[in-house]
Amino acid sequence: MKPAYEFRSDNCGRAAPELIEALAAANTGTDLGYGGDALTASLQVRLAEVFETPVRVFPVPTGTAANALALAASATPFGAVYCAPEAHINTSEGNATGFFGSGTKLVTLAGTHGKVGPGGLEGAIAAAGVGLAHRSQPAAVNLVQATDLGAVYSIDEIAALGDVAHAHGLKVHMDGARFANALVRLGCTPAQGSWRAGVDVLSLGVTKNGGLLADAIVVFAPETASSIGFHLRRAGTVWSKMRFASAQILAYVKDDLWLRLARQANDAAARLAEQIRPLAGVTLIAPVEANELFVDMPPAMIAALQSEGFLFQRRGPRLARFVCRWDTSDDEIAALSGCMGRLAAKEAA
Amino acid sequence: MKPAYEFRSDNCGRAAPELIEALAAANTGTDLGYGGDALTASLQVRLAEVFETPVRVFPVPTGTAANALALAASATPFGAVYCAPEAHINTSEGNATGFFGSGTKLVTLAGTHGKVGPGGLEGAIAAAGVGLAHRSQPAAVNLVQATDLGAVYSIDEIAALGDVAHAHGLKVHMDGARFANALVRLGCTPAQGSWRAGVDVLSLGVTKNGGLLADAIVVFAPETASSIGFHLRRAGTVWSKMRFASAQILAYVKDDLWLRLARQANDAAARLAEQIRPLAGVTLIAPVEANELFVDMPPAMIAALQSEGFLFQRRGPRLARFVCRWDTSDDEIAALSGCMGRLAAKEAA
Amino acid sequence: MKPAYEFRSDNCGRAAPELIEALAAANTGTDLGYGGDALTASLQVRLAEVFETPVRVFPVPTGTAANALALAASATPFGAVYCAPEAHINTSEGNATGFFGSGTKLVTLAGTHGKVGPGGLEGAIAAAGVGLAHRSQPAAVNLVQATDLGAVYSIDEIAALGDVAHAHGLKVHMDGARFANALVRLGCTPAQGSWRAGVDVLSLGVTKNGGLLADAIVVFAPETASSIGFHLRRAGTVWSKMRFASAQILAYVKDDLWLRLARQANDAAARLAEQIRPLAGVTLIAPVEANELFVDMPPAMIAALQSEGFLFQRRGPRLARFVCRWDTSDDEIAALSGCMGRLAAKEAA
Amino acid sequence: MKPAYEFRSDNCGRAAPELIEALAAANTGTDLGYGGDALTASLQVRLAEVFETPVRVFPVPTGTAANALALAASATPFGAVYCAPEAHINTSEGNATGFFGSGTKLVTLAGTHGKVGPGGLEGAIAAAGVGLAHRSQPAAVNLVQATDLGAVYSIDEIAALGDVAHAHGLKVHMDGARFANALVRLGCTPAQGSWRAGVDVLSLGVTKNGGLLADAIVVFAPETASSIGFHLRRAGTVWSKMRFASAQILAYVKDDLWLRLARQANDAAARLAEQIRPLAGVTLIAPVEANELFVDMPPAMIAALQSEGFLFQRRGPRLARFVCRWDTSDDEIAALSGCMGRLAAKEAA
Repeated sequence: MKPAYEFRSDNCGRAAPELIEALAAANTGTDLGYGGDALTASLQVRLAEVFETPVRVFPVPTGTAANALALAASATPFGAVYCAPEAHINTSEGNATGFFGSGTKLVTLAGTHGKVGPGGLEGAIAAAGVGLAHRSQPAAVNLVQATDLGAVYSIDEIAALGDVAHAHGLKVHMDGARFANALVRLGCTPAQGSWRAGVDVLSLGVTKNGGLLADAIVVFAPETASSIGFHLRRAGTVWSKMRFASAQILAYVKDDLWLRLARQANDAAARLAEQIRPLAGVTLIAPVEANELFVDMPPAMIAALQSEGFLFQRRGPRLARFVCRWDTSDDEIAALSGCMGRLAAKEAA
Repeated sequence: MKPAYEFRSDNCGRAAPELIEALAAANTGTDLGYGGDALTASLQVRLAEVFETPVRVFPVPTGTAANALALAASATPFGAVYCAPEAHINTSEGNATGFFGSGTKLVTLAGTHGKVGPGGLEGAIAAAGVGLAHRSQPAAVNLVQATDLGAVYSIDEIAALGDVAHAHGLKVHMDGARFANALVRLGCTPAQGSWRAGVDVLSLGVTKNGGLLADAIVVFAPETASSIGFHLRRAGTVWSKMRFASAQILAYVKDDLWLRLARQANDAAARLAEQIRPLAGVTLIAPVEANELFVDMPPAMIAALQSEGFLFQRRGPRLARFVCRWDTSDDEIAALSGCMGRLAAKEAA
Repeated sequence: MKPAYEFRSDNCGRAAPELIEALAAANTGTDLGYGGDALTASLQVRLAEVFETPVRVFPVPTGTAANALALAASATPFGAVYCAPEAHINTSEGNATGFFGSGTKLVTLAGTHGKVGPGGLEGAIAAAGVGLAHRSQPAAVNLVQATDLGAVYSIDEIAALGDVAHAHGLKVHMDGARFANALVRLGCTPAQGSWRAGVDVLSLGVTKNGGLLADAIVVFAPETASSIGFHLRRAGTVWSKMRFASAQILAYVKDDLWLRLARQANDAAARLAEQIRPLAGVTLIAPVEANELFVDMPPAMIAALQSEGFLFQRRGPRLARFVCRWDTSDDEIAALSGCMGRLAAKEAA
Repeated sequence: MKPAYEFRSDNCGRAAPELIEALAAANTGTDLGYGGDALTASLQVRLAEVFETPVRVFPVPTGTAANALALAASATPFGAVYCAPEAHINTSEGNATGFFGSGTKLVTLAGTHGKVGPGGLEGAIAAAGVGLAHRSQPAAVNLVQATDLGAVYSIDEIAALGDVAHAHGLKVHMDGARFANALVRLGCTPAQGSWRAGVDVLSLGVTKNGGLLADAIVVFAPETASSIGFHLRRAGTVWSKMRFASAQILAYVKDDLWLRLARQANDAAARLAEQIRPLAGVTLIAPVEANELFVDMPPAMIAALQSEGFLFQRRGPRLARFVCRWDTSDDEIAALSGCMGRLAAKEAA
């Protein structure tokens, strides 16, 4: 009875069976709670290999918890966090950053395709009134990778931001809700796409890319790691049966599963983009570099797609978002692009 | 390689297979995120049946999140929450209540076996300075059921506290981390053990009783329900793939599974208590009414048990806590009571 | 030894002697602390007469305390407060609003001359996602009167904002740091300029207009008044010897002193504006309707003024702010306009 | 019309005329706001002399602001602050410490006469679970000098607490609401009574000892000073016309005025104690070492004193508090002790 054509969000979809199998396999014997277990210890080792550097990994229930607590551990209560206006922390998390940061202020910097630019960041810090108690003090910058408009920061773009941030003592937080999608796009290693380019702390997205109930914070900067455990515990985000979360994340990175899943989603989005880009009256408002498409089209066309049973987010009178999942089928893509083609032809007629 | 004799905590154990099966079975098709799915809708209906009244159910990752956010939605920022000194919110949650409540104050009231008593509560409210801005204002009372010393509030005890609380405009929050264990002990219905006795909002424990990654808040008082969703969202506790959490809780209450699991744990604890109670030098410091035993014994005996490989919590020089799980085996109990018997005899000799 | 030409801020100046005399006169006998005294009681009565309606008045040490606590009592922790980008709460209070509101989010709405417009507010509320837990919920709108660019909202402009706000359940907060200056400009009564136009809670500025150590919150909406006392007490803003603060505010409004002082400052600013408006290369970027001038001029001219010993704020390479006080002298104005005239002539040459 | 016999609180009384004269004298010329003025600069120098060490001084409106912000700058959000159960921060500040600390937890340690003892502190830290994320982490200890029962810590007592605190990395905060009264009692220098004995940050009380609208934070530990300015600004406690506050505090310490005022209050209390100590049925429950008396007596006697027009605080059925001010007159003392003598004789009859 579920609708056949699902493009609302990557969190509307299924989990990869491998994660559920791993979770089920973890259900044996007994072990210490709150992350004192063997699987969580393995996870530290495993992600240190994946990222080619010592890391601290903290599985958390949601991306919002990951973002807000990574930032709380990176900023003072009177700090400012810079982000794009479109950033998830600014639009969709009920100001969790301000809450967990006990008054941390979000400052938005307009950029291109949901990105923060190094010039904008430099200018904002220069105008921020560093040292002036009247002003929220520059503390961190938040990059969403892939961005909330479906684009992907290049490694150079990340590094340029990192340079500006670090020159002024700011931490670099990457909201990697779609980090794997970005890695696949960039064709780079996890290390290249994160700490080597200047990222201090990463929200490692799992849920949207075949996960179910766990994401993770990956801390590269040791000084951040020293307090984040306290923040997490009192935030109620530390499961007592942590091993069931760690098992999922171990499975997620095993044999590059995460990259395979992300590639499938990206490829689906690329195919869809290719098919609808030529249509009259249809404009992709940002490059399709991960698994999301933001499409401008006539309002009547959006309404017609909705009444045909296609599920997607309407973001404005003329703006629709379509998201591909790791298991988005060729049929779904064909159905959507076919219908859009017919509607575009009718509009043009 | 895991130790055979595990009494550290009920969160060191396995999940009930039924919950994992339900979670796996939920991995089909697509559905709306953030609790807009069909399983979460079913959960509302199902728990309304279980509790024989309309309820709002919010699956959350941990008991700490359940407690702190239930209290945040029940208290003002300048409120006081009364609890026993032994209460989990006071001893073990990093003051999450104060944090989520933006300065809510915990006020401890000494009682018997981890309980808050109605006289103590009445006296505290009388002395609180109601209306006086210098003082944190009485806002809620927290009952842990079963208590943090393993005892169980009778229905009359809950009702007496509820009467005092409601007479003064306080909310009644039950930390039901071991709610099922208490129900089994009391032989009462979920309704009798909660809202009919005056509970306004319940932290429904799942994890310790065969769950894995989800607990729940059950709201009986509609005015509390109106804001708690906002609190939860910005706390990062609302999973986007909520259906995998709701599926677990549906399985948890299906065919009275939760009560069966709790009965097994309680019975194991009762058998263990029966076997060690007669031992010389061994004293149970609180009635064993759920699945925990708090045992006073000579320090040497505690040390000997540890070196024999028994796993449990040492709470003080002479105080040990032993927790039974739904799957604690007869062998484990026999081994522990046998060893304690031998050690007690040696001490007495 | 103090500089002769002071235009930095109205808070760099003297207090009106009447306030200091009143404070000194209050130093007699004994009385209850924390606002339980006779002078604070008189203040309630007196301001109810001034505003022609029952009010609750809370003297506070600073405008920041007034603003942040008025908003904290008007918004939920997951609320959004709308304001102009130039608003003092957004630029100059270290995000006190976010802090006291425990995560309240500031959302800026661009307008004209530092004003929020009703259309902008209506649009922002429409796009806010009311009821959606992902989004900070519209809670209040903040108007700065006079604005942070020296303009004054007309009564109709306030009323239009009030209508939009109230239609959607938002509170209207007026940051009246220069409320008296605005009243004088508008030629209206305090009631007309506040609650009759829809203001629910007013930060009544005293300090900038001849005060010294006290401002006040004036609450018109009774439901806000019920909690604000608790917010204020735990914020450490309730003096135990409150009578010395109340005495100042009583003197401030006695025999229309506040209006006389504001008129002097406004008149000084108007004279200055008149004299510099014709100068070549000099542009007033906003109407001079209170006691502040925001002046665009060549960078060299700004530097020359500084080296001539004129004290003012440089807000940008070409932007300077000049503020007139209640006791700004004709000499100061003549000196500044004379020097600017000479510099402008030189630039033009 | 004011009552003749005032023993309610030292904040019910007058300010020392010297402070008001200094405030009035400051009303000349113009100067920078927010503490950038010459008087505030002088205050830094002057208090460095008074305390014989470099200090940072921050005038604040109230003792609550001083305490809560000193502690916020000394503790992490997940910190615990130890204090006596009777401590002002625990009983009378609406949990400002928890609020400004964003969830900092107050942990009370019972002691003698309102003091924290080094043994109690040592034990509490040992049991606190240092490093354990479940537990609020020991961050600071709060000493009230004189205590909330009118006793005075000896220098050795302070030093012993300081040693324990510093051995475990805790900050030592002294709530010196009656610091001058304690200095007079101890006959020691300000340095001996504070940083030399281990105090890191001091709330310097002015209001209760002849002040009116300002107290101060004196910071000895430089690392605390680096952030407290930001905390204070966003708390709305930084006056823009700071010079009027600094002027008061300069007058307060000039020519040892503060010590003279405190001596007068202490002497009055000592005389009163001497006169009532012998009375039958009357017991001083704590040593009278500053300016407060806590007196146990028959309920009927308390009621009779109240109906005779004596003003004081009733703290319980048999407990009354009497506070002497710098200007408590011999007549007031004679009237009170005389009346108590008559009532005691009647009771005994």
